[in-house]
Amino acid sequence: MDKTVVIQLVCNNLFLDIPVNFLDHTQHKGLAVAVFGVLLCKLWGLIISPHPLPFTTDSQNKRENWVILGVFYYPALYYPLLACGTLHNKVGYVLGSLLSWTHFGVLVWQKIDCPKTPLIHKHYSLFSSLPQIACLAFLSFQYPLLLFKGLKGTEKNNATEDLSSSYYRDYVKKVFSKKKATKISSWLAFLQVGLLLISAVVPSLQTARMGVDEDIANLLAGFKIMLSPDKHEVVRIVVYYMWCVEVCYISAMTLSALVNLAMLMRSMVLHRSNLKGLYRGDIYNVYNCQRSIRASRPALVCWMGYTSFTAAHIFIGMIIQTMVFFLCLLVAVFLIIIPVLHRQNLFLFQMLWSMWPFWLMILLAVLIQHITARFCFIKKTAGTRDLDNRGNLFLLTYLLFPVNVLIGVLLAVWRLVITALFNIVHMGRVDISLLNRNVEAFDPAYRCYAHYLKIEVSQSHPVMKAFCGMLLQSVGQDGKAGQRSRDAEEGIQLVQQEKKQHKVSSAKRARGHWQLLYTLVNNPSLVGTRKHFQRQTADSFLNGSLNRSTKDESKKEAGSKEAEAAAGN
Amino acid sequence: MDKTVVIQLVCNNLFLDIPVNFLDHTQHKGLAVAVFGVLLCKLWGLIISPHPLPFTTDSQNKRENWVILGVFYYPALYYPLLACGTLHNKVGYVLGSLLSWTHFGVLVWQKIDCPKTPLIHKHYSLFSSLPQIACLAFLSFQYPLLLFKGLKGTEKNNATEDLSSSYYRDYVKKVFSKKKATKISSWLAFLQVGLLLISAVVPSLQTARMGVDEDIANLLAGFKIMLSPDKHEVVRIVVYYMWCVEVCYISAMTLSALVNLAMLMRSMVLHRSNLKGLYRGDIYNVYNCQRSIRASRPALVCWMGYTSFTAAHIFIGMIIQTMVFFLCLLVAVFLIIIPVLHRQNLFLFQMLWSMWPFWLMILLAVLIQHITARFCFIKKTAGTRDLDNRGNLFLLTYLLFPVNVLIGVLLAVWRLVITALFNIVHMGRVDISLLNRNVEAFDPAYRCYAHYLKIEVSQSHPVMKAFCGMLLQSVGQDGKAGQRSRDAEEGIQLVQQEKKQHKVSSAKRARGHWQLLYTLVNNPSLVGTRKHFQRQTADSFLNGSLNRSTKDESKKEAGSKEAEAAAGN
Repeated sequence: MDKTVVIQLVCNNLFLDIPVNFLDHTQHKGLAVAVFGVLLCKLWGLIISPHPLPFTTDSQNKRENWVILGVFYYPALYYPLLACGTLHNKVGYVLGSLLSWTHFGVLVWQKIDCPKTPLIHKHYSLFSSLPQIACLAFLSFQYPLLLFKGLKGTEKNNATEDLSSSYYRDYVKKVFSKKKATKISSWLAFLQVGLLLISAVVPSLQTARMGVDEDIANLLAGFKIMLSPDKHEVVRIVVYYMWCVEVCYISAMTLSALVNLAMLMRSMVLHRSNLKGLYRGDIYNVYNCQRSIRASRPALVCWMGYTSFTAAHIFIGMIIQTMVFFLCLLVAVFLIIIPVLHRQNLFLFQMLWSMWPFWLMILLAVLIQHITARFCFIKKTAGTRDLDNRGNLFLLTYLLFPVNVLIGVLLAVWRLVITALFNIVHMGRVDISLLNRNVEAFDPAYRCYAHYLKIEVSQSHPVMKAFCGMLLQSVGQDGKAGQRSRDAEEGIQLVQQEKKQHKVSSAKRARGHWQLLYTLVNNPSLVGTRKHFQRQTADSFLNGSLNRSTKDESKKEAGSKEAEAAAGN
Repeated sequence: MDKTVVIQLVCNNLFLDIPVNFLDHTQHKGLAVAVFGVLLCKLWGLIISPHPLPFTTDSQNKRENWVILGVFYYPALYYPLLACGTLHNKVGYVLGSLLSWTHFGVLVWQKIDCPKTPLIHKHYSLFSSLPQIACLAFLSFQYPLLLFKGLKGTEKNNATEDLSSSYYRDYVKKVFSKKKATKISSWLAFLQVGLLLISAVVPSLQTARMGVDEDIANLLAGFKIMLSPDKHEVVRIVVYYMWCVEVCYISAMTLSALVNLAMLMRSMVLHRSNLKGLYRGDIYNVYNCQRSIRASRPALVCWMGYTSFTAAHIFIGMIIQTMVFFLCLLVAVFLIIIPVLHRQNLFLFQMLWSMWPFWLMILLAVLIQHITARFCFIKKTAGTRDLDNRGNLFLLTYLLFPVNVLIGVLLAVWRLVITALFNIVHMGRVDISLLNRNVEAFDPAYRCYAHYLKIEVSQSHPVMKAFCGMLLQSVGQDGKAGQRSRDAEEGIQLVQQEKKQHKVSSAKRARGHWQLLYTLVNNPSLVGTRKHFQRQTADSFLNGSLNRSTKDESKKEAGSKEAEAAAGN
């Protein structure tokens, strides 16, 4: 290979061309995800570190400006790591291996050289670098692997691979695995938040626990709190209580992490079913209203920000969940568990017990209503039910009116609790709206997801991709397109040039019509795009740029063109 | 009229029979609403008063037991007021007038005798009695009016009126006016809460404001707060601040009341459209899933508690709204309005201003994404849009990833605010779910409303009522049913006895079939009930209890029977 050509190719790819095709399902998703992970860790470090950039010396002077610079500096710094993977040849993999080894080596050396920092916790800097080190290690391993595959010749041309893969058959599986990959960067976000939440609070609590001495008894006496006449006993009790708080906090953290994990899993399942539904044209079920699935300005903006927004929502969600769960656990431990264990200070139980006539009344009123409704006021005849004894029903309704108001108050409190809990638990999920079904679009996160789905569906319909792959294969069999089909966009241009020369027999054309019809019936979401290309084709026809024999053929070609355009891009 | 018969009739109605038919749209709704209003006021007084019942002397001893007794005592006490209206004759109205005058007189005399109480506020007891006095005054005016109408003979028989009224034509109007009546008791709840919220806080704030003297300067100095070197100046500032707090509180109260008023209006509109939808059989749109609309145990229990639950939800909703709006207004006044007016302590503005590079970066990033999405990445061809410049799109997505995470954090906070605000504002509405559309039924209030709707729809379908009215009229024309059609249930028995004697001509029968078919096509929710009666009729047929000439006729009869049963009940 000529050296100048290689350098030109590298420069082209590194600074001008596609970093990675995010809408393509067979790209090196692993590489992209690892780079995004590194970036997210860096962003996190940027915000909390006193030295946002490595070359700044004045710690607090104009710090915020350095942070803003860093927000753009780090993506540029790690850009070559991502770009090397898109070259799809040995040079790229060699460069990528070298770069990732350098980054990995520098980071590891830094941490070994200086593992302890005064920030938050002495090992915080080390711990927070772990996800970053993991991502870089993955890159350092992946690039040589790709190089090895390339040397053995098993690495296939990417665009051809995407289109010729058995996508149509396996598309459910692909959609699922793709989503998982996109979400991994959210899981890194995940780890970072967990680490911060633990390391920001637990060490200070531990330090405080170690530092408790007999002065605490005097301090508490100052607030007129007498835990025990013996000062040693007081210290023991305070240390015990602080240990309980610590346990509550770590439990809340763990719970919040588990909840978010479960929510991520559910998100994947929902996303998969949404995609499947929209491919089938089942728009009403997914959006709860009719929408046109096509690229638009807001949709594109939302698509660009989607991964970032998901990470941010998980971050905020985890913080809120941890706080709420922590408070709930504290209440549970100090008002229920400890009093029960020690059989003292049973305030809550005493209060509830003193209200027993009230609870009994509520219980009896509910029971009476259920029992009378079941046995007196509903008449079962011939398998269906109707009202009976209306007079007594109305009388009971009137007499129980005041009791029902009290039950209503309890229900309202329960409604408040359940609504708040649901929204807090689902805060990290952008794929469902936290609002009522009629005002779903007011939820900014859900609106973003809805737009994101539009782009995903309109640009990666598996039927279109399969169709396009078939077309490219048939062109490739003619021996003209083998070399130039590297990129799908090129592929389309190619087909546009080549297809004039093809003659299709009448029987083949008829079969083509039937297949087109069958495809459109099973994938109604393709119809909208088809119309557009029909019109476009009509324009081209008038301009004389395309010469086709029959109108039927032009229609069929339009169908294939539309499929290519959507799949190839 | 024989005296014994009258007494028997009165006793029958007062202690055994229907107090008021809540499912009938032409009953004296005003009377029922007024009695429910009085009851709600009494319940309110019961909970906050130290003397729950008039005949208790020991103020705090076993108070909760007296409250529980009162919950059942007051409905019984006011029951005759309600029952007198259902007699539908002069005796009932005379009794009702006397009773309501007595209650009204006693209450007014009590309040004139002792208008001031030490409870909460000196005039609280008087103010809180106002809605109750209004309700009793309404009753005292309404009963004589009914009596006067009865004497003039314009008061029609109630059941006949319900069924013979032009219900089918006017049903939208009726549904609307009926809902309004049901909600009036909620508006009374409304007034009570507003009154309590104002009278519990404003007087104490006013008292505190009056009591501010120069000691406050020393107190504040104790907390190291120096408002001014001059003590008079300090007093002036503190009084001014307290006046601000008071204004905030009253504004929050007013806002919350207005919000609840608007929500009640919207509830009515939604309820009306829900009823219309369900009459049309449009179940999926109302419930977001398929359900069978028929009476069941949970549905009946929810129907019994519905009005009470609504009142309780409005009560809790108003309290929460007032607290939240109060806090928001406090923040707005003390962090924004007062600093701007006095041009000092502009903490918030200084903080926001110091972050200007951050806001600028966010703004620029958003603008760049929107502008590039509009002009570079979307290609308009032949009226539709597709993606363009994919390479640069992916590059920009990658480079803006860290900025988008920061935007995502802002979005997450906005999501939190908007969700919380929406749920707080809609807390008083039981007819919408505060949860996501897939888990709507977990909202206890909405679940109750959904069940309540089932009973309302299944028991008061206007077509059934119109049909039933027509049948009763035709029977009445035969001169046999005029007297006994007072109650719809009786009406059904009557038709069952009479209809054997009718002979229907063949042409009339065919027209009947067509009308039945037309009705069922336009009101699919009737079909379910019809099948049931068909089966029931078949059973009766086998038992030989009914003798009909043809199977066709039996089917037609079944259709009319079903309509009667549902409408008459």
